[in-house]
Amino acid sequence: MEFELLANDSSSQARAGNITTGHGEIETPIFMPVGTVGSVKAVTQQQLKEEIKAQIILGNTYHLYLRPGTDVLEQAGGLHKFNGWDRPILTDSGGYQVFSLSNNRKLKEEGAMFQSHIDGSKHLFSPERVIEIQRSIGADIIMAFDECPPYPSDYAYAKNSMELTHRWLARCVKHMQETEPKYGYEQSLFPIVQGSTFKDLRQMSSEFVASMECDGNAIGGLSVGEPEEMMYEMAALCCSYLPADKPRYLMGVGTPWNILENISLGIDMFDCVMPTRNGRNGMLFTSQGVINIKNKKWATDFSAIDEGIDCHTSNFYSKAYLRHLFVAGEILGMQIASIHNLAFYLHLVKEARKHIINGDFNSWKNEMIPVLKQRL
Amino acid sequence: MEFELLANDSSSQARAGNITTGHGEIETPIFMPVGTVGSVKAVTQQQLKEEIKAQIILGNTYHLYLRPGTDVLEQAGGLHKFNGWDRPILTDSGGYQVFSLSNNRKLKEEGAMFQSHIDGSKHLFSPERVIEIQRSIGADIIMAFDECPPYPSDYAYAKNSMELTHRWLARCVKHMQETEPKYGYEQSLFPIVQGSTFKDLRQMSSEFVASMECDGNAIGGLSVGEPEEMMYEMAALCCSYLPADKPRYLMGVGTPWNILENISLGIDMFDCVMPTRNGRNGMLFTSQGVINIKNKKWATDFSAIDEGIDCHTSNFYSKAYLRHLFVAGEILGMQIASIHNLAFYLHLVKEARKHIINGDFNSWKNEMIPVLKQRL
Repeated sequence: MEFELLANDSSSQARAGNITTGHGEIETPIFMPVGTVGSVKAVTQQQLKEEIKAQIILGNTYHLYLRPGTDVLEQAGGLHKFNGWDRPILTDSGGYQVFSLSNNRKLKEEGAMFQSHIDGSKHLFSPERVIEIQRSIGADIIMAFDECPPYPSDYAYAKNSMELTHRWLARCVKHMQETEPKYGYEQSLFPIVQGSTFKDLRQMSSEFVASMECDGNAIGGLSVGEPEEMMYEMAALCCSYLPADKPRYLMGVGTPWNILENISLGIDMFDCVMPTRNGRNGMLFTSQGVINIKNKKWATDFSAIDEGIDCHTSNFYSKAYLRHLFVAGEILGMQIASIHNLAFYLHLVKEARKHIINGDFNSWKNEMIPVLKQRL
Repeated sequence: MEFELLANDSSSQARAGNITTGHGEIETPIFMPVGTVGSVKAVTQQQLKEEIKAQIILGNTYHLYLRPGTDVLEQAGGLHKFNGWDRPILTDSGGYQVFSLSNNRKLKEEGAMFQSHIDGSKHLFSPERVIEIQRSIGADIIMAFDECPPYPSDYAYAKNSMELTHRWLARCVKHMQETEPKYGYEQSLFPIVQGSTFKDLRQMSSEFVASMECDGNAIGGLSVGEPEEMMYEMAALCCSYLPADKPRYLMGVGTPWNILENISLGIDMFDCVMPTRNGRNGMLFTSQGVINIKNKKWATDFSAIDEGIDCHTSNFYSKAYLRHLFVAGEILGMQIASIHNLAFYLHLVKEARKHIINGDFNSWKNEMIPVLKQRL
C-alpha cells in the first residue's frame, strides 16, 4: 500500500493524499460507508459507485465471521467476489463488536471468549485468529485486534486495557508477517491507538503504534460518549505523534461537522453508521443543514432533497415524496435517505479535499460548519 | 388512448399490440408492477426503468387517497410529478381495498362507506368520488368503481353484486364525460367485468361492459381463491365477449404460468403483487424455475441469480450472496429479489410478445410452463 501526500493546508493540519491499494486508489480525506455483513444497508453496489461515489467500504469481522462465515467467503474467493464490490475494503477487527454485541464475553491475555448474539455458540477471538479471519475475508486493510474501553473509564482500567491492546498489537504484527494474503493482492495492517481520554496514555499509545511502522494508523475509543471537545483534543494529540507520511483513520466518527473538524486536525479516513442509521430513521444531512423528513412541514415541499450535491437520487426525488414514503412506512424511503446521506458525506470529504488542495480549507470549514449544523 | 393490434397468434387467442397514452407507448402483452402508495416496494424509479424495464405501473386509489391525499397530489401536479415516474400509470378504483383493508364498511346504492385502516376516519367512495380522485391522481388509465365478490359466492349474491357494479359503471362513465382531465393529458376509463364464477353472469357482465365502448376493458374478481382451471375458463369466456380491438386487462393475476396461460386466452395486461411480495419473502421466479433463496442449498452457489434475463441485478449478484442477505435480514436482499422478480415478469411478457409476433407463441408457452413451475 502506498500513501502519497499531495497537499498540506497552511492554516490547519488538514492534508490531501492518495492511498493506492490492490483494488485501486482512495483519495483522502475519505469517508468509508459501513457494510457490516458485506452490504451497506439498503444500498446496492451499483448505487454505491454511481450515486454515492464510494471509494472504499468497511466490513465487520465479527459479523462476517458469524455470517456467512469464512468457509463461504473463502469458497467465494473473498468478500470482494462474494458481494461484487471490486474497490478497496477495510475490515474492523471485531474487538468493538465482541464487547458491544456478544454475550458472556470474557477477556483473557489470550483473547476474548464470547457467545454469538445470533445462536449463542461460543468463540475465541485472539489477535492471531482475527488476522486469519481478515485474511480470509480478503480485506485490503486489516485492523489490529484491540479492546475499546467505555467512556468514562478510570485511569487504571484505561492503562491496563491499553497495555493489553499493545501486547495484542505486537502479536497481530507478528502474525501478519507469518501469514500470506489469500487472494494474490496485498493486505495492510492498521494498528489502533487507545488510551481513553488520558493525554499521557494517548501519547504513549500513539508512540507505540507509530513504532510498529505499519502502512497506516488508526485512532480508536473516541466518539463513545465523551464531549466533542475532548474528542477533538485527543484526536489532535494522537495526530501529533502519528507519522505524517501514513494515513490516519479515526474510527466511528461522526457527524458532518465532526468530520470537518477532524480533517483540520490531520485525520484522513473516517467511517460511521450515522448516515445510514439516521437516514433509515428519516434524518437527512444536506448542504443546507439537518432535516427531519418526517416533519409535517415537508408535506408539500416539492423541491429536491438536495440540489447542492452531485447525486441523482438527491436531485431527483422531492422532500414531499420522501416524507410521504416515511409516513407510509415504505422501504424506498430508507433507500433514498441512505443513498442521499452517504452521497452527502462523500460530497463533503471531496469538497474538503478540493479546498485543502486550493489552500483555503480552514476558512471554508469555518463557514460550512454552522450551515451544516442548522436544523431546517 | 390508441390500441393497435400488431399480431394474432394462429394457434391461440394471444395477441401483440401497442397502447399509446399521454405518457408514451405500452407494448402488450404487458405486466404492470404494483406501486400501491406511489412506490413499487423496495425499488427505485430508476431501477424500474433501467433494470426492470417497466412500461406502466399501478397505483392504488384507496391508499393514495388516504396518504398523501389528493390535496398533496394536486399541489404536486399529479402522481407522475410527485413520484417522478413519467411513463403511464393505471390506478385501481379502490373498490377491492375498501373491502379487503378498511373497517366498518357499509355498502349502499350510493357507494361504500368505510373507516380508514390507518386512523379510523370515515369516508365515502362513490363512483363519482372515485373518478374525481383518480382525476386528481392523474392516472392515464382510471378503473371503474366495482364490488369484487369473494370466492365462493352464491349465485344471488354474485348477481346482485354484478348489477350494482353495472349501475356504478354507468355513473362512472357519465362522470368521466362530465369532468375534465386535470393535467392536460388524456385519461381513459376501463370498466370491470364481474360475475364471480358463473358463466351466464360473466357473459352478461362482459356484454354490458363491452356496450360502454370504453378505451379498454378489465376482468375483475378472479384469482381470489378459485381453482386455476376455473380462472382460465372465466377469462376465456370474458375474452370471447370483450371487443378484440380494445386492450383486455386481467386484474391481480398471477404466477408466471398464469400469465402465459391467460395471454393465450387473449389477455393483454396484468398486475400482481406476487413478484414483489414473494420476493420480499425470498421466493424467486427465474428462467429455470422457482427458488426459495433462504434454503441452505444456495449457501455456496456462486452462480448469478438468473443469467437468462437482461437485468444487471439478476446477472450481477450470486445466489449465495442473496441467500446471505436474507439470512442476515439485510434490506438489500428484499431490494435485489424485488428487482429480479419484476425484471423476470417483464422479460416473460416481452418474450411472449416476441413469440406472438414470430407466430410460435403456443408451442413456446407449452415448453416454458413446466420449466417455470419447477422448484429448484
